[in-house]
Amino acid sequence: MIAVAVLGHGVVGSGVVEVLERSRASIGKKAGADLYVKKILDIREFPHLPYAHLFTKSFEEIVSDPEIRVVVEVMGGVTPAFDFVSAALRAGKSVVTSNKELVAAKGAALVALAREHGQNFLFEASVGGGIPIIRPLHQSLAADEIDEIVGILNGTTNFILTKMIRENMGFDAALKMAQELGYAEANPAADVEGIDTCRKICILASLAFGSHVYPDKVPTQGITSVTLEDIQYAEDENCVIKLLGHTRRLNGKCFAVTGPCLVSRESPLAGVDDVFNAILVRGEVTGDVVFYGKGAGKLPTASAVVSDIIDCVTADGPIATLQWSDSDGNNVIDSREDAVPRYLRCRGEGLFAKIGAAFGEVHLLRRPGKPADEEAFTTAPISGYELEEKLAALTAQGVEVLSTMRVWGQQ
Amino acid sequence: MIAVAVLGHGVVGSGVVEVLERSRASIGKKAGADLYVKKILDIREFPHLPYAHLFTKSFEEIVSDPEIRVVVEVMGGVTPAFDFVSAALRAGKSVVTSNKELVAAKGAALVALAREHGQNFLFEASVGGGIPIIRPLHQSLAADEIDEIVGILNGTTNFILTKMIRENMGFDAALKMAQELGYAEANPAADVEGIDTCRKICILASLAFGSHVYPDKVPTQGITSVTLEDIQYAEDENCVIKLLGHTRRLNGKCFAVTGPCLVSRESPLAGVDDVFNAILVRGEVTGDVVFYGKGAGKLPTASAVVSDIIDCVTADGPIATLQWSDSDGNNVIDSREDAVPRYLRCRGEGLFAKIGAAFGEVHLLRRPGKPADEEAFTTAPISGYELEEKLAALTAQGVEVLSTMRVWGQQ
Repeated sequence: MIAVAVLGHGVVGSGVVEVLERSRASIGKKAGADLYVKKILDIREFPHLPYAHLFTKSFEEIVSDPEIRVVVEVMGGVTPAFDFVSAALRAGKSVVTSNKELVAAKGAALVALAREHGQNFLFEASVGGGIPIIRPLHQSLAADEIDEIVGILNGTTNFILTKMIRENMGFDAALKMAQELGYAEANPAADVEGIDTCRKICILASLAFGSHVYPDKVPTQGITSVTLEDIQYAEDENCVIKLLGHTRRLNGKCFAVTGPCLVSRESPLAGVDDVFNAILVRGEVTGDVVFYGKGAGKLPTASAVVSDIIDCVTADGPIATLQWSDSDGNNVIDSREDAVPRYLRCRGEGLFAKIGAAFGEVHLLRRPGKPADEEAFTTAPISGYELEEKLAALTAQGVEVLSTMRVWGQQ
Repeated sequence: MIAVAVLGHGVVGSGVVEVLERSRASIGKKAGADLYVKKILDIREFPHLPYAHLFTKSFEEIVSDPEIRVVVEVMGGVTPAFDFVSAALRAGKSVVTSNKELVAAKGAALVALAREHGQNFLFEASVGGGIPIIRPLHQSLAADEIDEIVGILNGTTNFILTKMIRENMGFDAALKMAQELGYAEANPAADVEGIDTCRKICILASLAFGSHVYPDKVPTQGITSVTLEDIQYAEDENCVIKLLGHTRRLNGKCFAVTGPCLVSRESPLAGVDDVFNAILVRGEVTGDVVFYGKGAGKLPTASAVVSDIIDCVTADGPIATLQWSDSDGNNVIDSREDAVPRYLRCRGEGLFAKIGAAFGEVHLLRRPGKPADEEAFTTAPISGYELEEKLAALTAQGVEVLSTMRVWGQQ
């Protein structure tokens, strides 16, 4: 009998209790021991639940209970989650979390603390919900050098963009629909501003390259300014617009960036629609491997949490391939160093000549009903620095730049 | 320093030596110890190689060497691989293999033997080459019940079908091109007859459902009889033809089947082209997760082998979630129990009435230049038994049935 405590009885927390109960026999077989929930921490009360007697408001009661071997942190946020997780690890318990904010902010410290105490800190559910990605990344691809990771990491924004692309729905209407369907929260900022995607690409980059990539090193743009015009122009480039988290080795370091991108329809990411997530991992020898599935949902996420619990129970000490060092930020270079094709949409007089003067040859794009004073185009691969110079030149000539995005996945 | 021996210096074997050498530092870091190849078994000699001194023709020399902790079996075939692997496990060494024929034939026995001796028998590279699938299946999805697995598991046949679909190339010409490009062997039978796919779906089914599914329980059809006419009719159904390995829980047991299928273009498997593989795993709570990548190639496969070596070195005893019991065949039911829509193409006089009499309402398909005495159609879901009855009825009326396939992935 191995006792588990769950911190937080929200969507994921109640899902973890449900999965542990529902599949108790088969989980017990795989874990080699019967797993049960001994305590649930929540400030709320749930008197109607059959397991109401498991609730406590005292974290102390959990951390001081020697029977509890694994603590599941599914409260969200960094405070007080970080303190609770740290205390649990120090008390010699392994910790499993789905909290991407915590992992992106404190992953290196918590992996190190876990190792120090002979325990594990696992977070499969923090990226991609039920899609196995964290463990394959550090374990199955351990023999390869990872060069690049590109992911559609947020189901809410992918749903909104899919509605915009397929049904010509505006951003606001698509967001409203996502909220009505329960895919977006009342305050959707973390999703639509790209913050959630940024946290997840930080976690993936840190694992892939071994040193913590902190969110403040990752330029992050959301999808609130993506328009139906952009989507139509992208179509003319045989692309769709997706919110990507992107990280890549470059000049001995790495960069990471989050933002809406034009994604070639030839890429395996282009067809990833609705609330689905997909993560493309490019290994030096393995080539491209893509992991695809529903990136969220109560039970898929809970199921990933429970597989981590099984890992904690069956592992004999810290899992060796999970290596994540802290960093001072010098491991990350400015994403502007990366030269990629760019998409631009601008408005102004005499655009054709001004664009030509600034960019040389570009690929002009069409859309139905394009006004005479609007142009959109894609460029040859250029760095972010070059782009800034050229944008300054355009602006100086009175051109209004309405939109710029990176282009990804073209041959 | 941990010594490894490699049995067989073919494509994968030489790749394993290359990967271990090329990434020695980072592999050493992940494994927690320096890994090196101490011996290579091959009946051939390679005097020109810088590591020519590592070769031996004596397996005895390897199995009796107490320094060798992990044996890599990449010879292929069951004999003598099975004897060598068994002897290595009995000698207290872990074994890693990419040999799907061996795993499909002897997986349960070798997993048990490894456990008995406190070792591991790992085979990530046996399915999907460099795509992580074996470990995610038993480990990351450990908390879920797997309901179904459908895979494009053979790159050679997928390349041939892609050429047929995209370029209207006949089977023979596409096979010839695959051979010229090195994707198909001089004797392509194991690929084009579906034998390779059958072995792989057996491995996946055994792991997913916990009991060995032997190849002789799996009806297996290749792609040699797929014609351009079938491909055109499939197109009219908004489908492509893919060679699928398919396994699913049914009536408390499971079935598995291998054969060309009509795959809906709405399915994430439809866009998997050329030599790429993809495996869709349907979990009870996780829903669909798809793993996609190049399914073969020297270095991707070698990289998967090396990640297994790292696992053997870092694991403390047998990996708990890898559970695979032997079976007497009673775990598998006849795949004819499965009711799915079927595709048929037939030739004869008065077809319309005869088809209607046998099948009731069907969905008739069109193709350019369809002769008057040919019809193709898809049916409602019917079992294999029903299908056989109806085919007998058609045949009794003088109808020639040219093709039958299962239809997969429609809503």
